[in-house]
Amino acid sequence: MAQAHALQVLVEALRRLPGVGVKSASRMAFHLLQHDRAGARQLAQALQHACDSVHHCRLCHTFTEHEVCETCQDASRDRSKLCVVETPADQSALERTQAFRGLYFVLMGKLSPLDGIGPQDIGLDRLLDRAGDGVVQEVILATNFTAEGEATAHVLSERLKARGLKVTRLARGVPAGSELEYVDLGTIAHALHDRR
Amino acid sequence: MAQAHALQVLVEALRRLPGVGVKSASRMAFHLLQHDRAGARQLAQALQHACDSVHHCRLCHTFTEHEVCETCQDASRDRSKLCVVETPADQSALERTQAFRGLYFVLMGKLSPLDGIGPQDIGLDRLLDRAGDGVVQEVILATNFTAEGEATAHVLSERLKARGLKVTRLARGVPAGSELEYVDLGTIAHALHDRR
Repeated sequence: MAQAHALQVLVEALRRLPGVGVKSASRMAFHLLQHDRAGARQLAQALQHACDSVHHCRLCHTFTEHEVCETCQDASRDRSKLCVVETPADQSALERTQAFRGLYFVLMGKLSPLDGIGPQDIGLDRLLDRAGDGVVQEVILATNFTAEGEATAHVLSERLKARGLKVTRLARGVPAGSELEYVDLGTIAHALHDRR
Repeated sequence: MAQAHALQVLVEALRRLPGVGVKSASRMAFHLLQHDRAGARQLAQALQHACDSVHHCRLCHTFTEHEVCETCQDASRDRSKLCVVETPADQSALERTQAFRGLYFVLMGKLSPLDGIGPQDIGLDRLLDRAGDGVVQEVILATNFTAEGEATAHVLSERLKARGLKVTRLARGVPAGSELEYVDLGTIAHALHDRR
């Protein structure tokens, strides 16, 4: 089909979104042009505006429109505890627990040598500077419990301990509400080892 | 988490894409801002450009940047046959077969009373005008073989026949390459009924 050129360009642009193939991209383009042009224009503006105004917080490296994000500015927070997470979504999950009142450092990624992502790409130096400000007493590593998240925690832990900081890791164990019969063996083994 | 406002707006805008929930939208926003700002700006431009320049072909109603689309302009096509499809994607599938050299009419939807989509919303009057131009001899209904597609074909067929046009429907039957044992019974029943 000789498709309108602007439509082809739009489909190509939509394909750059993660998890969107050529069929989904075509479906999205069709939906926007046929049923929701207002939504399309709104998305265009939101993209432009976010690209122009969102950058990284000087302290915790998360996305913000200010020099320092609202969480880091919050005077009621315990500045002696610094929790290291991979992404803003992870930070958001921790915040929703309402169990942590310290500050965060967001890596915006994880170590992944196979993808060429090394310590500099996740801001190791920035983290060392941040954690070494003299106020932070404890660094809590809350990277994911995947192979890459564990490797990241290991490397960060080594480097932070070398600076004399107290480093802890989120506890591994049996998830709340689960029956032992259905919990994977590695998790049970960890829970046994870390029993208290 | 006190998320950057521009980021929240972007996530909301991405959620308007079909099949995108809040988790996917957050992941897309994170990916674009962290790893592909050039892609984000490109997408914004493509959306804007498509909204400004893409409209409907005066003859077949598909998306085009011209008054009449390239397919309708193609002088080598058989103007006596008009194939009615639901979407440009369906038209594209038919084109790829290289088995049809007539023209198309793209409904840009299907009858769906439950969603409030009636004959006017799929351009029935425009189709009747188009098919009644005195050149079209045969209208081939190639709407999908779903409940809604079949209902659409039925309604269009009635109205087109009332104007004295020859109306045909794509054949139903056993798909190429399939074994009878694994073909659903409704399809086999249709294939028996329409045997030739």
